[in-house]
Amino acid sequence: LAQRVSRFGTTVFSEFSALALKHQAVNLGQGFPDFDGPDAIKEAAWKAIQGGVNQYAPGVGAKDLRNAIAEHAQRFYGHAVDPDTMVTVTSGATEAILDVILGLVDPGDEVVAFEPFYDSYDANIAFVGATPRYVPLRPPDAEHTTWWFDRDEVRAAFGPKTRLLILNSPHNPTGKVFTREELEFLGHLCAEHDVKVLADEVYEHIVFAPSRHIRAATVPVLADRTVTVSSAGKSFSLTGWKIGWIIAPPPLRDAVQRAHQFVTFATASPFQAAMAVALRLPDSYFQELTALYTARRERLLTGLRAAGLQAFSPEGSYFILADITGYGFADDVAFCRHLVTEVGVAGIPPSVFYGPEHRHLGQRFARFAFCKSEAVLDEAVRRLREKL
Amino acid sequence: LAQRVSRFGTTVFSEFSALALKHQAVNLGQGFPDFDGPDAIKEAAWKAIQGGVNQYAPGVGAKDLRNAIAEHAQRFYGHAVDPDTMVTVTSGATEAILDVILGLVDPGDEVVAFEPFYDSYDANIAFVGATPRYVPLRPPDAEHTTWWFDRDEVRAAFGPKTRLLILNSPHNPTGKVFTREELEFLGHLCAEHDVKVLADEVYEHIVFAPSRHIRAATVPVLADRTVTVSSAGKSFSLTGWKIGWIIAPPPLRDAVQRAHQFVTFATASPFQAAMAVALRLPDSYFQELTALYTARRERLLTGLRAAGLQAFSPEGSYFILADITGYGFADDVAFCRHLVTEVGVAGIPPSVFYGPEHRHLGQRFARFAFCKSEAVLDEAVRRLREKL
Ligand SMILES: CSCCC(=O)C(=O)O
Ligand SMILES: CSCCC(=O)C(=O)O
Repeated sequence: LAQRVSRFGTTVFSEFSALALKHQAVNLGQGFPDFDGPDAIKEAAWKAIQGGVNQYAPGVGAKDLRNAIAEHAQRFYGHAVDPDTMVTVTSGATEAILDVILGLVDPGDEVVAFEPFYDSYDANIAFVGATPRYVPLRPPDAEHTTWWFDRDEVRAAFGPKTRLLILNSPHNPTGKVFTREELEFLGHLCAEHDVKVLADEVYEHIVFAPSRHIRAATVPVLADRTVTVSSAGKSFSLTGWKIGWIIAPPPLRDAVQRAHQFVTFATASPFQAAMAVALRLPDSYFQELTALYTARRERLLTGLRAAGLQAFSPEGSYFILADITGYGFADDVAFCRHLVTEVGVAGIPPSVFYGPEHRHLGQRFARFAFCKSEAVLDEAVRRLREKL
Repeated sequence: LAQRVSRFGTTVFSEFSALALKHQAVNLGQGFPDFDGPDAIKEAAWKAIQGGVNQYAPGVGAKDLRNAIAEHAQRFYGHAVDPDTMVTVTSGATEAILDVILGLVDPGDEVVAFEPFYDSYDANIAFVGATPRYVPLRPPDAEHTTWWFDRDEVRAAFGPKTRLLILNSPHNPTGKVFTREELEFLGHLCAEHDVKVLADEVYEHIVFAPSRHIRAATVPVLADRTVTVSSAGKSFSLTGWKIGWIIAPPPLRDAVQRAHQFVTFATASPFQAAMAVALRLPDSYFQELTALYTARRERLLTGLRAAGLQAFSPEGSYFILADITGYGFADDVAFCRHLVTEVGVAGIPPSVFYGPEHRHLGQRFARFAFCKSEAVLDEAVRRLREKL
């Protein structure tokens, strides 16, 4: 066992998915829809398979998919992307994140990120021998209508060794959507310290009015320094296809591509062809996705509150955090274990998404996914009301 | 640009595939078939897509595919594999190799491998801050009917810091198939130095009689210390699907799985379902694959020799190395560039698969792939005869 992996056990997603299965719990844990994306995308994959698109794709990704990624960026965000020099297709966003960190961060460098974080950030930072500097997001309170961060804490996290800021918006698991003003503040800090930005925007199409997703790379002060990561899983309800991508200014794309070619080399060709079709779906597809999740969010929020939980309304993503402090458990892990074994509902304990210093901040919450059919959400709520 | 990637430009595969396209060359460069695997596999993928197998697979891989991997190992090699504790499914063998190196090798460790090597080994060793110790394979000569290694050179490469031996058999690009006796020699050396083995066996089903593929993990002295990597690409002529796997004793599987979960997390679900079908194809499928490649090898060998090249007959893999010293080029890269631009045939210069110390040994050769249709092989030969 190499030291770099020795402190990482099984991801919480695998652990709670297995527990959910074992206890026949309603699974609101790992974030995958229990419905699939449009048939047109599936049929495009089959057409590619039948049509002989079954050998290695170019390492940077299939030309047509790179074009579609660029068109999509232009259509939704006015983000000008050159498909040939600014895009790398990856085997999901998880690989994309690793490619960025391998390509940009040296041993001894520092990486700033917000807590709670997607757990692979922490592992990937450790993989390259860098040091994370975490800044906790704070829950809504009397003065803040949404999750927020203390600007002095962020400033204090930056220093001469800072190489990268990881910015996840819409944010998993808090549901925070960073505002333009927040992005500008962070951008100026990065410019001041010559820091690059990894913008993980996989929930870009799951944002609830009046919030709006702002692509970090379109904020002028961030444009030259931002590497955008996104993927097919969340936007097209096909998390199992594992197509992600990186958009970056050419010199940064060059760096991440050098890493990518020795991580997976290339990504499944037929699904690349299908994703080109997906990204070109009409606006109505994306509007319907938002409408669907707006309704599901409401349904689960209402249900959780009816079950007595204090639940925060997310501005984006398909997750809800609920305060669990009133239930007398030692922490969120104990609460979530009880929930999955005794109540029959699987959630995710968010304290695993914090470093040791701020772990206690996460122990107050449990995360529930609402990317599920109405019947599943209702059954989860029924169980919570009955047995919690 | 992080230092770890700064010395790696674009892989030679991407470079020569692009050159081949640009110059409309017959592409015998990167190793992908110009024909696809059986329809039954493709249809299994479509069935999975239609049947809703489109969300995250378990991180270790789909249960049914893990079972099929274990059955396949038992059927062909009598290799006893527990599907639940010894298998991880990856996004191709390239990812599998990185997972093994991330999971088992610490900074400052040494990794022994043979030259020429698959280029991702060298990059992945650099990624983790380890040091490669390369031992060159030597071409057939008066005393050796096949590629061979000097046992003293191998012994000298092992030392107190050695953590891993990378063993690629059948070997790309020499076509060497390691014998049982060679594996035992290497196994005893590894046992003596408490070294683990990464056995990259992606060409396991492309071996020509009388040579036979020996699964390293079934050699007793290697059993406890060997991590086997293989993939779907070569055995099923579907290199673009990017399904690979790792088989390892439980403690080593645990180590590589910890890495895998933060590299890609999981691998494309529908193709996992299809690969379970592929691995259970009857023996006749595998025999026909061998027969096909036996004929293609003969065809290209004969053709290359007719064109005046001294070509080595491979025992396995779908590559042929040819001696190019008589043509007056500075090195293999110059030769291959001339070939692709002036002759209209793309090959791969193998010197890029050597460390700096032994690079000159690779400069004598060019690599040609014969995983191509007969018409393509014939056209390549025609061009070589005419213009070389
Ligand atoms: C590999 S799990 C990816 C992220 C997600 O879906 C989750 O947070 O549940
Ligand atoms: C990603 S290229 C994989 C290996 C191969 O096919 C080759 O050596 O050409």
